[in-house]
Amino acid sequence: MDRQNAIKQSIEKLKTRRQNQLNVDKIVSGLCDGKISDLSTAITLLESTSADKRSAGLNILDAVMPKTGNARRIGITGVPGVGKSTFIEAFGLELINRDHKIAVLAIDPSSQISKGSILGDKTRMEELSAHPQAYIRPSPAGSVLGGVAARTRETILLCEAAGFDIILVETVGVGQSETMVHSMVDFFLLLMLAGAGDELQGIKRGIMELADQIVINKADGNNVSMAQKAKVTYGRAVHLFPPRDNGWVTAVSTCSALNKNGIEEISDVLNNYFDNLSDSIQNNRQEQNIFWFREAVNDLIQDQILNSKELAGEFKSLEQQVLAGQLSPFGAATKLINVIKHAQ
Amino acid sequence: MDRQNAIKQSIEKLKTRRQNQLNVDKIVSGLCDGKISDLSTAITLLESTSADKRSAGLNILDAVMPKTGNARRIGITGVPGVGKSTFIEAFGLELINRDHKIAVLAIDPSSQISKGSILGDKTRMEELSAHPQAYIRPSPAGSVLGGVAARTRETILLCEAAGFDIILVETVGVGQSETMVHSMVDFFLLLMLAGAGDELQGIKRGIMELADQIVINKADGNNVSMAQKAKVTYGRAVHLFPPRDNGWVTAVSTCSALNKNGIEEISDVLNNYFDNLSDSIQNNRQEQNIFWFREAVNDLIQDQILNSKELAGEFKSLEQQVLAGQLSPFGAATKLINVIKHAQ
Repeated sequence: MDRQNAIKQSIEKLKTRRQNQLNVDKIVSGLCDGKISDLSTAITLLESTSADKRSAGLNILDAVMPKTGNARRIGITGVPGVGKSTFIEAFGLELINRDHKIAVLAIDPSSQISKGSILGDKTRMEELSAHPQAYIRPSPAGSVLGGVAARTRETILLCEAAGFDIILVETVGVGQSETMVHSMVDFFLLLMLAGAGDELQGIKRGIMELADQIVINKADGNNVSMAQKAKVTYGRAVHLFPPRDNGWVTAVSTCSALNKNGIEEISDVLNNYFDNLSDSIQNNRQEQNIFWFREAVNDLIQDQILNSKELAGEFKSLEQQVLAGQLSPFGAATKLINVIKHAQ
Repeated sequence: MDRQNAIKQSIEKLKTRRQNQLNVDKIVSGLCDGKISDLSTAITLLESTSADKRSAGLNILDAVMPKTGNARRIGITGVPGVGKSTFIEAFGLELINRDHKIAVLAIDPSSQISKGSILGDKTRMEELSAHPQAYIRPSPAGSVLGGVAARTRETILLCEAAGFDIILVETVGVGQSETMVHSMVDFFLLLMLAGAGDELQGIKRGIMELADQIVINKADGNNVSMAQKAKVTYGRAVHLFPPRDNGWVTAVSTCSALNKNGIEEISDVLNNYFDNLSDSIQNNRQEQNIFWFREAVNDLIQDQILNSKELAGEFKSLEQQVLAGQLSPFGAATKLINVIKHAQ
């Protein structure tokens, strides 16, 4: 009876595996044909916490790798209230006008609390979200920024394989998400408001210097002259920053996303960047890939540690001793590694 | 005969271990009494590639932990040619004048090639290096920046235990070392030259926004008016940067390290910072400790991987496949983790 059950289970497993394989092949081919439903399924598999589904997602990802890499990857950040959704609506439609297919992704580690701010944004991106040449996907859930960012990076690749040739990655503009998004895009656009200073509260220091383009939004109504002034000021400031190896000087412009003014000029800057700096963009992507590989190794090992009852306790306890100044960070790390070796 | 030899060897090992223990105790007590020879020995042990010596070094470090944390940790960076050594000579002597004990450390991942640039610097820090209240230690050797930086961080702690109450950490001002040093200090000072722009070539972007103080050096001779102009320009620019949580606004000043002009004012800024922001400094140190603990865990695990013949080959091969676009960084990392699990 036991033996019969075991055989039955084996057969079930084999069936499931074959079924999954068939599904994977079907999803890969649909995704490469640009079928949105298959793209969404693949993303959901990669975001899954079930090991089997995640593994199927990775198989899909590796299968479509030859079709990736052909999009312009653009990061868009700015403090809450700067008008990111309105800007992405206007900017995205302009890019579609220029015959691009646009995917809009988000990195928001708080989205599991706020139930996905970009879902709310969808209503603020009414025209774009309804457009057949646009695909809007909310931020993956997760409280660990590294994990959220890694899933977004995978989603970029899937969207590229599905034929989207411009990927916009939006960040919430607080905490560390800007640094993460900077490490996965070719071009980094910082949205600002005239007046600056306190309006930047929450933006990580160092981000302004990383921006390839600074756009002062809400240059409309009474704000126009203030925005123009801000443009001059920032235009001067960017020349104080250390020069880039590729010679690019941060572009500074104003726009009114609300009135769709200045959006064309921003798209022209983008063309200029991508048309002239392809070598430097390719080098940068190589570095990013190595960075992400190593980060992924670190993340997976940390998962192993935190998922092991024995090691997780040890990790937390050592971290506490480091915080209390009882152990040096290096002594504590060495102790942890010894426990890991011992556990093997 | 074999048995006799084995017993002899055991006895030798025990003797060595006891001897090492005695040495550790002796070094700990000497170091805490401020004996420079013991401090230097402890640093050398920590920097050693021999596992036994390294382990003795870590024992010393953990033993002196209660005596650490009482220094002001200051990072100093700037491009080659900005006059870092001359500045540190003048600044260090001014701080000694104010009754401080100064340790000068360096992070220079190229030092194993150049045989330690700070050793050459010593001759350019003639008065400081001869002063009984100063201790100058060259950069640890190593080609991996993470490793070099980790050893420097450990050395900071040892110097604090030995009674130095100001630690100056110098970087070479190229590549990523500035970010590393920023993550181990309380106060980050950026040395600049008037004219800026191209003079900053090689400085990592984002660093200027991280600076707590920008000092325009070589404000002497014909340079004075240009330095004054630069001061005004940078003074305006720092107000464009995102504000800090602790309210500190980057100080901007000029100096002539050569003529020892403006050095007192820089020390006053330092006092102002440390006297008024101790809560924020303590919080920052807690975050740094956790960061270093996790970095150290990652580094040690990576060492394990690269020191295992099987895993190192796998790691390199996967990295190549990522670079060739054959595997996604995440798929490759997952494969590596599976090999590691299998190897256990």
